[in-house]
Amino acid sequence: MLPFAPIAGFSPVRRRLLVSLGIAPFAAAWRAVWDQVDPLPSWRDGAAKRAILDFVAAVTRPGGPRFVAPTDRIATFDNDGTLWCEQPTIEVAYTKERVHALLARRPELAKERPYDQLARHELAGLTAQDVLRVVADTHTGMTEDEFTAEVKRFFATARHPTYGVPYTQVVYQPQLELLAFLRLNGFKVFICSGGEVGFMRAVARELYEVPTEQVIGTCFRSRTEEIGGRLVLRRTDELLLVNDEEGKPVGIARHVGKRPILACGNERSGGDIAMLRYAQGNALPSLALLVNHDDGAREARYAEKDGASLAAAREHGFTVISMRDDWRRIFAFQ
Amino acid sequence: MLPFAPIAGFSPVRRRLLVSLGIAPFAAAWRAVWDQVDPLPSWRDGAAKRAILDFVAAVTRPGGPRFVAPTDRIATFDNDGTLWCEQPTIEVAYTKERVHALLARRPELAKERPYDQLARHELAGLTAQDVLRVVADTHTGMTEDEFTAEVKRFFATARHPTYGVPYTQVVYQPQLELLAFLRLNGFKVFICSGGEVGFMRAVARELYEVPTEQVIGTCFRSRTEEIGGRLVLRRTDELLLVNDEEGKPVGIARHVGKRPILACGNERSGGDIAMLRYAQGNALPSLALLVNHDDGAREARYAEKDGASLAAAREHGFTVISMRDDWRRIFAFQ
Repeated sequence: MLPFAPIAGFSPVRRRLLVSLGIAPFAAAWRAVWDQVDPLPSWRDGAAKRAILDFVAAVTRPGGPRFVAPTDRIATFDNDGTLWCEQPTIEVAYTKERVHALLARRPELAKERPYDQLARHELAGLTAQDVLRVVADTHTGMTEDEFTAEVKRFFATARHPTYGVPYTQVVYQPQLELLAFLRLNGFKVFICSGGEVGFMRAVARELYEVPTEQVIGTCFRSRTEEIGGRLVLRRTDELLLVNDEEGKPVGIARHVGKRPILACGNERSGGDIAMLRYAQGNALPSLALLVNHDDGAREARYAEKDGASLAAAREHGFTVISMRDDWRRIFAFQ
Repeated sequence: MLPFAPIAGFSPVRRRLLVSLGIAPFAAAWRAVWDQVDPLPSWRDGAAKRAILDFVAAVTRPGGPRFVAPTDRIATFDNDGTLWCEQPTIEVAYTKERVHALLARRPELAKERPYDQLARHELAGLTAQDVLRVVADTHTGMTEDEFTAEVKRFFATARHPTYGVPYTQVVYQPQLELLAFLRLNGFKVFICSGGEVGFMRAVARELYEVPTEQVIGTCFRSRTEEIGGRLVLRRTDELLLVNDEEGKPVGIARHVGKRPILACGNERSGGDIAMLRYAQGNALPSLALLVNHDDGAREARYAEKDGASLAAAREHGFTVISMRDDWRRIFAFQ
């Protein structure tokens, strides 16, 4: 190992590359520069940033006691309130727009439950069944391609009600840096959200550089159909998985087939506790992160009534990310 | 472009890398050597090999009329009879072994349907329901980790009845080369099989260098459970998807969220026709491959009674791979 001491910090593959290219002697200088680059400039120094940097350094150090092979470097991120803002929930804004279009096409529906209640803004009286009916009516029935096109149209035109920017811009800048940092360190990053999977897939690459096959979400069954000699998929209203709470580990196991070593969710409705605990149950080293919405000035301040997520963080040792204290800025446009 | 003429065949990212490293002038020489290396040495020259090489060259040529961005270079491969042999079906061999273990544990089952029929080898009388019952009894009820361990134990000990080698060795050598060649050209390779997803995931990386998250298969619903303060997943017998025939495009859409540009299946029970047609329905260039088991000397010769797959190949223009004519060798051990 001695001749390679200057590049000992590099992975075996990179070491071989550096040696074969004849630039190994310069690697130490490069490394010194590199180490001074802050990979998370929108994160303030603090316990959360330190926990992330230490964890990534440990699992990527070849031969180290906490080293994790690249193939097991799976990270799963919730979406609403974790990667982009959820005030309002963007998919709810989309659903409202589609309800308007639906009622314009079929005005007789406005007299039927649950659309009569929606028209009177009686949201408190809606049952889970009602909500599912509205989601199914607005998210299914069309082909996969038609649905994707509708979602893309929405993102091209709709604007956030208070920030006044397209919804594609209300992503958290510190999290974009974290996703990039993880990828740079050989992680495969998945989105694992309660949102409908096709809705997120329509924009996940543009927003987060996450390809469609790395998005896990609530999903409906589709079926094949022939249109003009071409096999297409039509979305049916049969619900297959609600990818929230206990559904998240189920969704991850079905899709990824192994536990994440890093999971990140947020405080709002307890929806991410099971995912974070699932990551912690990994036999490999793991890190569980929980975003806390405590910044009323720059974003929004809200908390669960029962405080379940923060209580779980204390009990299980999730690392809590304070948006107010840990993030130097929230949105790139601010 | 002129200064970069020697490296015009490289992708923009690689071009920048070569230029920045100062080795662009040597790239042409390297390319000339590279072009003489046959990436598919176990494939004989012929229409199938030519179709594969031409397709990959076309979709990876930057600026070319058929160029496909790496993010859309999705390939899906059936498993049984396409990547490894299916005489006998390896998962059936596994299921038989597990039935023996089950009956040893619960001998009273031997008097019940469908186990009484199995004991009398009356396989013809089994209904789809019966088969599903046996699969569920042998593949579910345990935790995900326990199931994976059971499958790995099987592969560590069981041997193919005629070749006498472990089942991990009855993979088709030409296909291993094809998978490697596709990955080298920026493809993401998925397995998309009628087999149970966890069964394949237990060995997919070892056999094919395909990570668990790139395996799509028939699957059962799992549910979370606490064991000693740890969140684990238990497999239930609720069937979620039969990933065969029309179920394959459904499984791909659910898992990948976009159509493959290359799909490869085999002739046996018509199970891959829908997947190949789904790939062909891609708005991007596509290639549909069908393995034909016509080599009774080196592997096995069998055909569908109704000839549906070969008829579909003629109708839709699938490229048929003759194991006898197109493959120089079948297994590495032969």
